[in-house]
Amino acid sequence: MNPIVRRAAVIGTGSIGASLAVAARKAGAIGHVIGVGRGRANLAHAIDSGLVDEVSENPFAAVADVDLVVLATPVDSATQLLPALVAAAPERAIFTDVGSVKQPIVEAAVKCGVAERFVGGHPIAGGTGTGAIAADVDLFRGRTVVLTPTPEVAAGACAIVREVWAAVGARVVEMTAARHDEVVALTSHLPQFVAFALCASVGRSGEIDPALFGTGFRDTTRLALSDHDMWLAIAELNRESILQAMDRFASLWLELRAAVAVGDTAALRRIFQEARDRKARLSA
Amino acid sequence: MNPIVRRAAVIGTGSIGASLAVAARKAGAIGHVIGVGRGRANLAHAIDSGLVDEVSENPFAAVADVDLVVLATPVDSATQLLPALVAAAPERAIFTDVGSVKQPIVEAAVKCGVAERFVGGHPIAGGTGTGAIAADVDLFRGRTVVLTPTPEVAAGACAIVREVWAAVGARVVEMTAARHDEVVALTSHLPQFVAFALCASVGRSGEIDPALFGTGFRDTTRLALSDHDMWLAIAELNRESILQAMDRFASLWLELRAAVAVGDTAALRRIFQEARDRKARLSA
Repeated sequence: MNPIVRRAAVIGTGSIGASLAVAARKAGAIGHVIGVGRGRANLAHAIDSGLVDEVSENPFAAVADVDLVVLATPVDSATQLLPALVAAAPERAIFTDVGSVKQPIVEAAVKCGVAERFVGGHPIAGGTGTGAIAADVDLFRGRTVVLTPTPEVAAGACAIVREVWAAVGARVVEMTAARHDEVVALTSHLPQFVAFALCASVGRSGEIDPALFGTGFRDTTRLALSDHDMWLAIAELNRESILQAMDRFASLWLELRAAVAVGDTAALRRIFQEARDRKARLSA
Repeated sequence: MNPIVRRAAVIGTGSIGASLAVAARKAGAIGHVIGVGRGRANLAHAIDSGLVDEVSENPFAAVADVDLVVLATPVDSATQLLPALVAAAPERAIFTDVGSVKQPIVEAAVKCGVAERFVGGHPIAGGTGTGAIAADVDLFRGRTVVLTPTPEVAAGACAIVREVWAAVGARVVEMTAARHDEVVALTSHLPQFVAFALCASVGRSGEIDPALFGTGFRDTTRLALSDHDMWLAIAELNRESILQAMDRFASLWLELRAAVAVGDTAALRRIFQEARDRKARLSA
């Protein structure tokens, strides 16, 4: 069986890029993968472990003769790199990405004139490590990948990106980039900012014996060690939706505070129940 | 070796009460334990599984000839029950409890005239189930128990309660009830309310495919299924410290929101770092 894509470049061989490279190669979905990165040790690991077929430190040379370009760098770099990659790649090349914010990259694609062959993507799958060393051939198995095709995208380009994701075991859903960014502001960015704020506000309240923190605090703040650069970029790129989500949270917080202050049992029960209902629907 | 306590009544044979009963009996710290509860099936399990030596549905009869009374009911019931238990118990009986809020029960003890023989306690250990069936002889091993003796407590009473906890493997720390309540408002009650608010505010934002919630949201909202009655009681009993903690969080939230709104990278980095520092000190 022929591969879905003959030759692809994966720009950024971190855990997501390297996982997609190895999974797509093993599944026979991509015939030849060039892994592009800046860290030599990371690239050496990628090639030595057979995650990719070839490595390169030069993204523009790497895309010269490929059918698919996968942007798997940090979200802000992907948007910055796109125009020069479009110029360096053949006109047949389809572009996709794996970033967790979709409107800026989709807008950049339209601006570069590749709206017909750019399919934004976001796998809802987080590895536990960073770099090619954290690559996992099964990272996307059973996970969801959101694609955000614009009305301009050629049906063939969209089908190819869908098929590659399906080949590595992911379930593909489609929505607009705007809706995606609104949704992840609630499901991913808001919990991250809540964890930062919870941990920082307790941090400002003086020293407390670590033994007095139970498992509740530990779980609720697991995200507090997340990468700062990544979250600065996300805060910048998804600002409007994040602010909206933060304001929704703030309004609930005021409501909860008022109910605690006056001992309004009915209001507290209602909020507790809304929380339980939303939580229960996650596992339904 | 003689037991530390000859005869004790544990009022409330839920997971904490039953775990303490079985652990203290196995360790030889308490000679005879009467488990008191209202649910017949639960009491039957407690006696049939050898968690306690004797069961009773009548707390007042149960304490008639004991040396130690352990209040292990929900926090609000403990405060309500205390006066009648003091009246029913012999004058030699020492009282302690396991509630997660300490000022109201300590105040109740002072009011009942048992300040000399009441030692408030709070094990920082949560079981995963409820009822005697969730009893775990090792629940307190390596965990911390906070005792909140008042200046009026007799040294002997305090020593006995400490020794019982040490015998079941816990590490005992002492602080005032006021400091305890301030600390748990930050380390336990605040994360709980954050989880309720996060889940409820996302719940109000319309339906979202469960597959679009990553592990971050799931961990940050693990507490959202917590028991409502317990948290209504805690909100009532520790109102002032909870409001103070909520206001600290709200002020951090406003600061974070302002930094996101204007893209103040330095302010965002500072908050992210404060969060990381606090989190890192938990495992230090």
